[in-house]
Amino acid sequence: MAIGRESVENLLKLTKPKWRTSITKVEPNRIITRGYPQEDLIGNISFPEMVYLLLKGELPHEEQAKMLESVLVSFCDHGVTPPSTQVARIMASTGANMNTCVSGGISSFGKYHAGALERSMHILQKIIKEGINSEGPPTSSHELKNSALVIVEHFLKKGKKIPGYGHRFHDKDPRPGKLIETAKKYGCFGIHTELAVYIENLLLEMKGIHMNIDGANAGILSDMGFDWKHGTGLFIIGRVPALVSHIYEEKSVESPFRKFVDVEDIYFDGLECRNIHADRNELNTSK
Amino acid sequence: MAIGRESVENLLKLTKPKWRTSITKVEPNRIITRGYPQEDLIGNISFPEMVYLLLKGELPHEEQAKMLESVLVSFCDHGVTPPSTQVARIMASTGANMNTCVSGGISSFGKYHAGALERSMHILQKIIKEGINSEGPPTSSHELKNSALVIVEHFLKKGKKIPGYGHRFHDKDPRPGKLIETAKKYGCFGIHTELAVYIENLLLEMKGIHMNIDGANAGILSDMGFDWKHGTGLFIIGRVPALVSHIYEEKSVESPFRKFVDVEDIYFDGLECRNIHADRNELNTSK
Amino acid sequence: MAIGRESVENLLKLTKPKWRTSITKVEPNRIITRGYPQEDLIGNISFPEMVYLLLKGELPHEEQAKMLESVLVSFCDHGVTPPSTQVARIMASTGANMNTCVSGGISSFGKYHAGALERSMHILQKIIKEGINSEGPPTSSHELKNSALVIVEHFLKKGKKIPGYGHRFHDKDPRPGKLIETAKKYGCFGIHTELAVYIENLLLEMKGIHMNIDGANAGILSDMGFDWKHGTGLFIIGRVPALVSHIYEEKSVESPFRKFVDVEDIYFDGLECRNIHADRNELNTSK
Amino acid sequence: MAIGRESVENLLKLTKPKWRTSITKVEPNRIITRGYPQEDLIGNISFPEMVYLLLKGELPHEEQAKMLESVLVSFCDHGVTPPSTQVARIMASTGANMNTCVSGGISSFGKYHAGALERSMHILQKIIKEGINSEGPPTSSHELKNSALVIVEHFLKKGKKIPGYGHRFHDKDPRPGKLIETAKKYGCFGIHTELAVYIENLLLEMKGIHMNIDGANAGILSDMGFDWKHGTGLFIIGRVPALVSHIYEEKSVESPFRKFVDVEDIYFDGLECRNIHADRNELNTSK
Repeated sequence: MAIGRESVENLLKLTKPKWRTSITKVEPNRIITRGYPQEDLIGNISFPEMVYLLLKGELPHEEQAKMLESVLVSFCDHGVTPPSTQVARIMASTGANMNTCVSGGISSFGKYHAGALERSMHILQKIIKEGINSEGPPTSSHELKNSALVIVEHFLKKGKKIPGYGHRFHDKDPRPGKLIETAKKYGCFGIHTELAVYIENLLLEMKGIHMNIDGANAGILSDMGFDWKHGTGLFIIGRVPALVSHIYEEKSVESPFRKFVDVEDIYFDGLECRNIHADRNELNTSK
Repeated sequence: MAIGRESVENLLKLTKPKWRTSITKVEPNRIITRGYPQEDLIGNISFPEMVYLLLKGELPHEEQAKMLESVLVSFCDHGVTPPSTQVARIMASTGANMNTCVSGGISSFGKYHAGALERSMHILQKIIKEGINSEGPPTSSHELKNSALVIVEHFLKKGKKIPGYGHRFHDKDPRPGKLIETAKKYGCFGIHTELAVYIENLLLEMKGIHMNIDGANAGILSDMGFDWKHGTGLFIIGRVPALVSHIYEEKSVESPFRKFVDVEDIYFDGLECRNIHADRNELNTSK
Repeated sequence: MAIGRESVENLLKLTKPKWRTSITKVEPNRIITRGYPQEDLIGNISFPEMVYLLLKGELPHEEQAKMLESVLVSFCDHGVTPPSTQVARIMASTGANMNTCVSGGISSFGKYHAGALERSMHILQKIIKEGINSEGPPTSSHELKNSALVIVEHFLKKGKKIPGYGHRFHDKDPRPGKLIETAKKYGCFGIHTELAVYIENLLLEMKGIHMNIDGANAGILSDMGFDWKHGTGLFIIGRVPALVSHIYEEKSVESPFRKFVDVEDIYFDGLECRNIHADRNELNTSK
Repeated sequence: MAIGRESVENLLKLTKPKWRTSITKVEPNRIITRGYPQEDLIGNISFPEMVYLLLKGELPHEEQAKMLESVLVSFCDHGVTPPSTQVARIMASTGANMNTCVSGGISSFGKYHAGALERSMHILQKIIKEGINSEGPPTSSHELKNSALVIVEHFLKKGKKIPGYGHRFHDKDPRPGKLIETAKKYGCFGIHTELAVYIENLLLEMKGIHMNIDGANAGILSDMGFDWKHGTGLFIIGRVPALVSHIYEEKSVESPFRKFVDVEDIYFDGLECRNIHADRNELNTSK
């Protein structure tokens, strides 16, 4: 059987594409992001607008852009106390490249570090969408307060921390108050943030625990329509400038390959001396 | 009981701080970044101002902030053509966490990928600071043009690409023109960018090669006073939102663990069948 | 000058060690690993014995060492089909360093890729330790077969794959047969591997699905007393040489920064052209 | 024009393969590594033989295999003093996955950490291949000693450390002596190691500096025919078991998310308090 040239060309166009995307189209001399030529975006939209456009496929309203800007600024830095920053600086000290060190910092976010935002968003979005025990979304302040109570009791009974509340360095994190004030100013205080505040009220009364930065941002970002799966990504966007700054500081101020841990800083636990030949004999005869 | 001075001094040797920073001070309930309480920064400064403050320790002028915003926006995305984006998406497909995938994308920047900005900044800053052959900074347009010529000839003679010029997907990258126009608008077009333009003029005439995004941003960021060692860090800050967006798209649109490379896509080179027992016998007798 | 006890105690608070370990003690000119001076280990123990010693704190019997060697060899390579290998090679192509590329490969192991060994070990160890529904460990072949049936039915009902069974490239993975034969030879075929085989028998009968390399190694490593939390670590130890080899091949055989994905390989989905000024006007008036 | 079915099928076979390899061929139910079916390798070759086969494409002699085994064992661990191990443990403490932590450890190798092996191999191989100043390979012990002198003087004049000599924790590293003894035993002490020893003799006499583990292994691996570009890869293969072991120890012995750096451990440098509104006013009026 013979096949026409045209259909061969169609076949050759790779029928099952391994790669496809709705984010950016690249053609010779044209780069179209979410429908906009990039030369139209440069100089015309703010960085938070770009973030919003990339993540959600649409431009935000002006006030949403301002709110996202405040959220991103709030993630900026926490000095050298976060493990991710320590990792980035230790790596910088070995002479690793800037991008390798940033990468190391970001991959240091584990379930105990920088995961609270996403988990808090997940909880808030689940309750607002499905209600407690999937009985439907809360429809009044009363039901919302009740949802808060169920959540708090659920975690307290399990002896677990509620993501978004409490901070190991601060009794009262100075950031959430300003964030919530800003959300009210920009019309981004909605039902998710309201729920987050009810949870804080209960926790404060019962255990003296305040909301932290992640609790506030979880409410606000959810009210702005961000999927909880965007949570860690948004935190990374906000935190990367600090990592760059710390890596630069380590490389320019400190001595290369300095000893972060000296021998006298280490406690050696149960490392008595053994003899390999004796141990191996015993091992193979006792078998 | 009292203790002698000497042993106290020994004790105090432990206190030589392993960690110090000028970026952010953390105290209970207070977080001070570059001198400003963070609750004063949230809602009051833009994200690019925050980036500038973190990296340089000072707030920028309003126009510098606008310029940095445009630069960061220009780094946004290049679809699925960059290796870093492919890496981030392949990792996303394996079920790796968001932060792990972003980290993988960032660590994919090697000397051939995303290194041009920093190298271009380095060249421009070296010439402007030291002149060609360290004979002192260029003091006129004529000397600057001559420096451009020396650079171009140096690279052409070696058969090497000049970082910041040419693009493997575009004859004429659509972004540098808009960036340079913006730099002029915001008073950020200075001697480094002038030099970058002279280089382009020569390259265009001699080889038909245009400036790319890195060449333009190298000039502009240098004119804004950024150290070339900040180059890759600034690129990462601008590119991270795209990585987050691609990882999210891969995870939400594509099937998990899909085959990016199928067996029929692979060419196996020289893998004829061998017999281990025969080969080992020969190996140990021929010895 | 003498100093009071109290202030000394305050000083001593700094001495609470941040770092301690039972793995290796470092003193000037002495390095003691698990009790053995390293110069006694070099030349006297095999690499798999070293792995066993590091992970479990004791030397293995001779046959355990041989078994672990076979397990590590079995992890060696799967060509360029695994996403981790693709990531390592794409990174190598950008000019990233060897260690960065190995690191990228390893961080590509997500829940769908290279996680099956650990999850399979977890299942087998849980059943052997606690029994189905925590009613106590199985005490006969009959109970063991019954446990296998409960596991298979549990996963089939949920429509989920059982970790350690089936392979996306092989109907019948060629490695598990040889591994189980080797385990019998070295006295490392115990109750966990027996359970793994019973599961295979059922799956084969019901769905035509065979055990894969992870299922066999999960049984064997569990019978050797390895904690399931060591699973991914052991796989990494076995796979790293292949990553090194692929990165070296990419760097020495292929052109740097080659296009793994060309523009014509990409399908652009819904990226119609939009006008930023029109869209923004509409956005802010419709608000 | 019409095209025959056969040539279409040939065309469809992807004429320009993006992926090719000489390491492992994967076919349904067959995995062929360097020509050998994997089921023939499992149980028949040692792990170091597998490493050699993967990296060099051939099986080693028995004595080369023993030598490589000793080299890999020698890389095993250096407690918690290396930055890479600290990074792996800090990441483990955040709850990051085993593979993410191993990856973090490996990406911490920078030019000051774990790079000496490769650089030392590079120097030795260059001298043996090209001679000093490319005047041809040294052909006598006398010329070799002279090469050693030129190298030592070159580094001393520049005030730089020679890679492979000296150790920040040991005056006399206990491992190289045993390695060189082993190399002599297994016929792997050749001209590269001889050169390495001559360098040590001079350094010891002139500066009291001994060879370290990297210097010894650089000589031995070069004499075994390994390309210097394999150096860091071989070190990683040998060190990964320790990283796995430290991550496991951190996760099983220590509290999650413990404070490696407490606020009182940090010295804050020049973070006096500033007022954002005042500063911004001044900034924009003074412009």
